[in-house]
Amino acid sequence: MRFSETFDVIVVGGGHAGTEAAMAAARMGQKTLLLTHNLETLGQMSCNPSIGGIGKGHLVKEIDALGGVMAEAIDEAGIQFRVLNSSKGPAVRATRAQADRVLYRQAIRRRLENQPHLWLIQQAVDDLVLQGDRIAGVVTQLGVKFSAHTVILTTGTFLAGLAHVGNNNFQAGRAGDPPSISLAQRLREMNLPVGRLKTGTPPRIDGRSINYSLLQEQPGDDPVPVFSFLGSVAQHPRQIACWITRTNRRTHDVIRDGLDRSPLFTGKIEGIGPRYCPSIEDKIMRFSDRDSHTIFLEPEGLDTHEVYPNGISTSLPYDVQIDLVRSIRGLENAHITRPGYAIEYDYFDPRALTRSLETRAIEGLFFAGQINGTTGYEEAAAQGLLAGLNASLKVQGRDAWCPRRDEAYLGVLIDDLITRGVTEPYRMFTSRAEYRLQLREDNADMRLTEMGYRLGVVNESRWQAFVAKREAIETEQQRLRKLWLRPGMLPEADLVNVLGKTIEKEYSLYELLRRPDVTYARLMSLPGIEQGLVDERIAEQVEINVKYEGYIERQKQEVARHTAYEMTSLPKDIDYRNVRGLSSEVQQKLNQFKPETIGHAARISGITPAAISLLLVHLKRGFELSEIK
Amino acid sequence: MRFSETFDVIVVGGGHAGTEAAMAAARMGQKTLLLTHNLETLGQMSCNPSIGGIGKGHLVKEIDALGGVMAEAIDEAGIQFRVLNSSKGPAVRATRAQADRVLYRQAIRRRLENQPHLWLIQQAVDDLVLQGDRIAGVVTQLGVKFSAHTVILTTGTFLAGLAHVGNNNFQAGRAGDPPSISLAQRLREMNLPVGRLKTGTPPRIDGRSINYSLLQEQPGDDPVPVFSFLGSVAQHPRQIACWITRTNRRTHDVIRDGLDRSPLFTGKIEGIGPRYCPSIEDKIMRFSDRDSHTIFLEPEGLDTHEVYPNGISTSLPYDVQIDLVRSIRGLENAHITRPGYAIEYDYFDPRALTRSLETRAIEGLFFAGQINGTTGYEEAAAQGLLAGLNASLKVQGRDAWCPRRDEAYLGVLIDDLITRGVTEPYRMFTSRAEYRLQLREDNADMRLTEMGYRLGVVNESRWQAFVAKREAIETEQQRLRKLWLRPGMLPEADLVNVLGKTIEKEYSLYELLRRPDVTYARLMSLPGIEQGLVDERIAEQVEINVKYEGYIERQKQEVARHTAYEMTSLPKDIDYRNVRGLSSEVQQKLNQFKPETIGHAARISGITPAAISLLLVHLKRGFELSEIK
Ligand SMILES: Cc1cc2nc3c(=O)[nH]c(=O)nc-3n(C[C@H](O)C(O)[C@H](O)COP(=O)(O)OP(=O)(O)OC[C@H]3O[C@@H](n4cnc5c(N)ncnc54)[C@H](O)[C@@H]3O)c2cc1C
Ligand SMILES: Cc1cc2nc3c(=O)[nH]c(=O)nc-3n(C[C@H](O)[C@@H](O)[C@H](O)COP(=O)(O)OP(=O)(O)OC[C@H]3O[C@@H](n4cnc5c(N)ncnc54)[C@H](O)[C@@H]3O)c2cc1C
Repeated sequence: MRFSETFDVIVVGGGHAGTEAAMAAARMGQKTLLLTHNLETLGQMSCNPSIGGIGKGHLVKEIDALGGVMAEAIDEAGIQFRVLNSSKGPAVRATRAQADRVLYRQAIRRRLENQPHLWLIQQAVDDLVLQGDRIAGVVTQLGVKFSAHTVILTTGTFLAGLAHVGNNNFQAGRAGDPPSISLAQRLREMNLPVGRLKTGTPPRIDGRSINYSLLQEQPGDDPVPVFSFLGSVAQHPRQIACWITRTNRRTHDVIRDGLDRSPLFTGKIEGIGPRYCPSIEDKIMRFSDRDSHTIFLEPEGLDTHEVYPNGISTSLPYDVQIDLVRSIRGLENAHITRPGYAIEYDYFDPRALTRSLETRAIEGLFFAGQINGTTGYEEAAAQGLLAGLNASLKVQGRDAWCPRRDEAYLGVLIDDLITRGVTEPYRMFTSRAEYRLQLREDNADMRLTEMGYRLGVVNESRWQAFVAKREAIETEQQRLRKLWLRPGMLPEADLVNVLGKTIEKEYSLYELLRRPDVTYARLMSLPGIEQGLVDERIAEQVEINVKYEGYIERQKQEVARHTAYEMTSLPKDIDYRNVRGLSSEVQQKLNQFKPETIGHAARISGITPAAISLLLVHLKRGFELSEIK
Repeated sequence: MRFSETFDVIVVGGGHAGTEAAMAAARMGQKTLLLTHNLETLGQMSCNPSIGGIGKGHLVKEIDALGGVMAEAIDEAGIQFRVLNSSKGPAVRATRAQADRVLYRQAIRRRLENQPHLWLIQQAVDDLVLQGDRIAGVVTQLGVKFSAHTVILTTGTFLAGLAHVGNNNFQAGRAGDPPSISLAQRLREMNLPVGRLKTGTPPRIDGRSINYSLLQEQPGDDPVPVFSFLGSVAQHPRQIACWITRTNRRTHDVIRDGLDRSPLFTGKIEGIGPRYCPSIEDKIMRFSDRDSHTIFLEPEGLDTHEVYPNGISTSLPYDVQIDLVRSIRGLENAHITRPGYAIEYDYFDPRALTRSLETRAIEGLFFAGQINGTTGYEEAAAQGLLAGLNASLKVQGRDAWCPRRDEAYLGVLIDDLITRGVTEPYRMFTSRAEYRLQLREDNADMRLTEMGYRLGVVNESRWQAFVAKREAIETEQQRLRKLWLRPGMLPEADLVNVLGKTIEKEYSLYELLRRPDVTYARLMSLPGIEQGLVDERIAEQVEINVKYEGYIERQKQEVARHTAYEMTSLPKDIDYRNVRGLSSEVQQKLNQFKPETIGHAARISGITPAAISLLLVHLKRGFELSEIK
């Protein structure tokens, strides 16, 4: 049977990529259909109950700046909010929130159900309909053919999904959900460049069996951060604490003893896992000198005792998981409610995609999310939004759009994927962005909302709020430029209090705000200075703009210089373990590949622009020196 | 691997039977393990979002009287409460509530998570462990062996589940959830008496596409009813209305035109479906003279637009479903979010069970719920509770317990199952109970809570509340017996107002309350009579007790007489369509089988005791007469 209506955009899959894709296309006015296995699992978090973190928080803010739903949803579902790196520069500051899984699903589903132009249908997609090398629609498990101008596949970990626990394995999309077998077969027949990846999740623990008195408490931040540019603290549900514990020598012994039944080490798992979210058995093997790793015990919600032990993702056998968990302080009597497992699934080489996430082989077919070899909700959501946007632009006969690397993490993500491809599940880090001083969380809206509005993915009310904010910032910066402080104008004590010292010549407030120790709030406390802004987020923006103007300028020059260093040769005998600041993964890779030039090094997958900067610094210092030392 | 601890009771499956079974066993202090596919689907309503109704409401109250969770959960999750048959006698009055699915799952899961002695583990069970003809445990998909003294299987529609939509079918436990294939195979190898049944569900509709202005509104009752004996209106979430519409000739034409692709009529489905919750295509075929059937549009929750169209359960092809729905008033533009489907699954002949729901073949193995050939959440939950209770009694070395037919619907249910077996999915009706005047919703606690407490399945606080209530009733009945009204004692106007007339001799208030038109509240309004009870539910109990004392007595005699009629012969040429009050199903069956005696008729499956009463009445009247008329 053929469904009577033709859609502009069909999105397959209701995970994080699929929901953003469907929402974006519908916001752009396209007649959009979201087809997914089960409407009950819309917005389901397959693994950790949290959103954001370093690099990822940046993506969430960008998604929000483009009108997406992730930030809004976590504002309604977040039970602990923190700003990571809050003591560091604003570029690497990142928001992270624990989610109540049930509330998160509800927040996503409510938005999907209420979005005009969007149809939801629960049905598994088994096949694609092609017309020559153009997509024409999809066929579901019920044999129904849905026609569409464009199709976005966001199948996550479901394509030929195979779950592993020890030597046991079973077909699944994730624990408890059926896999997508037929579609995987059909895609393989289409000769798209397919591969296998794997990812893992830790066992879940019954909180009633945890001895919290032995653990370190980790409260959320006060004041409580907010994710969406349009959000407020009042939207948050009740806030609660997380807890910290650690693995120990016994834990590591238990793991080593179980390795002979680990599917990762016995070759049962073919797919490659994420180096950056490694399983605990991976960590023990790779960092064999460390005898302890941190574990964050994260509550799964307000209304459940289940706890997510962040840091012990594993596919070891069930008995080893039990011993492993119970070897940890505070978890001596822990009851495991769900075993940890690894999942292997089909992904497609993203180098076969254009910047708009359209496949080069099949016109009108887009891929977004984990299917492109990434890992993480935020990476998936960001791609979903972009794919939804570009499918819509295509239907509208407009040019595709993708932000540049200096405009957004989203640009970095897409550029990395389509130019470098992946050799392991790709996740975002601030270190992947060479322009990261300008790609901050705080200015994501300034970077993207105007473009989003012009493209049609940002609605009127968000746009109005943005324009008002932008004007307020501009007005305030102008005002600060025009307000001059002259020596003797104010009592010395006030100046010392606010500036740390007196002034000997006249300065505009703008210039004074550039100084590292001077804050906007304290400047405004100077007698006779009228308070310019009440909204703290706008004030913060002004402060960062003014303070980092110089840095950003310098960064741009630095990047230009890097390009010149592209040809700089690297000595053969260098031991990268002595290069300060490099992560041990990067050190390993460089020692393994021994690249000849900086350019060569930069093209090795996993070697970030930040690592290249460190190398350049090292070379300047003279590596011989550090070798000898 | 063998899990280190041994459990008293392992329950397989977290549906309605499984959750009550696990809770009951844990309340009895047994070390209990609940193993289920997915902790996210604990307490999931597979089909209609409602609890209760005629016969079913009675079971819910009995479950509650025995300390179960269903009534408490629906009090927290119910978004529309009504008392059906409220104008009829108290025996057939029944409470029914629409549920918010998400809140219902949460209410069940919260109770499971907080129940002492109960462990929850997410894992599929693939096999049973036997020691001779005794159960010893189960083996999960991960190859983990969990040992136990008793095991309760509550696998619902999952065993070898096969979903049908038109000519398409696919393996599933229900839409979106994987089936249980391995366990089904193993059970078949064990030579238990297996069969196939089927049940169906309607398509779901996006409420935004419904034209409510064309529909009849159906509000809940005011005052709002409460399900649990310990519950209160304050626990209910926001209350909303349902809506009523009807099928019409065009609907029926659409269905008839689609029958050639109906898996029910083309023989694709082998399993037998429930006559009493028939699919709409069944109804059209069986009642071909009717050109309209009622449809109740029931909201699926407070936070979703999805609507459940009660009355059009179907497994017709998807295109027919769309046309069918859109032919209905108010649904002209309806968007289907999930297709309706039928599901076929393995069940086991309940005649192979004892009254405690233990299998005769394998000691310590219990079956409860849909696996026994029943349909409905309430029937499943009731069996679950009984199985959990009896597994516990067995572990404790105590005698099994099952209420008699005159004590509880639960007794009727079990007795019907194990003596008659099923030929189609079994659901409860008040007509199945020959003692139904004493098996009322209102007195379920009086019938069962004391026994539940003695058995250990009712906790102390429920027991205390019950004892207080029972004493209050007893005290008040004594008081009413001792309060005498003599002619002339009160102004005539007052007497006429309350009793409808004056009195000529002295009466106790107890005697006066027996009169059909006299209510407790009005009796208490007589001048000089002190108000005895403030709690309305207790007052109602007193009123019913007093009023129906006589009826119940007479009913018992009636039943005794029935037994004598067992041998009464039935004329061969009787046309049962002329027997007043028989449902058309019963008429059909009797005309088909032409039983020789009343006893024979009574043993035909589907012929209820109530039908037998009607037959006896008919015979007394002289069937010849009615034949001629
Ligand atoms: C075991 C496991 C471990 C993980 N570990 C990590 C980790 O270490 N770090 C991390 O950041 N993230 C991890 N994740 C999270 C996760 O994989 C994501 O990165 C994220 O969920 C990807 O989003 P997505 O939208 O691409 O896919 P998903 O969230 O997987 O959603 C896919 C959706 O598509 C639907 N679907 C699939 N096929 C079909 C079809 N044929 N027809 C209809 N619907 C279909 C599915 O039902 C589902 O709704 C893990 C997930 C799992 C399961
Ligand atoms: C399509 C459909 C139509 C229906 N129609 C009706 C109707 O018309 N009228 C009506 O009253 N009711 C209907 N129902 C409701 C329903 O079937 C029930 O009657 C009720 O849910 C039965 O409860 P249960 O506990 O026996 O099983 P279920 O609610 O089905 O629960 C079974 C549980 O066991 C788990 N499980 C199964 N096998 C395993 C295993 N091997 N290992 C671990 N866990 C396992 C499952 O995951 C699930 O949690 C319908 C259901 C479906 C799916």
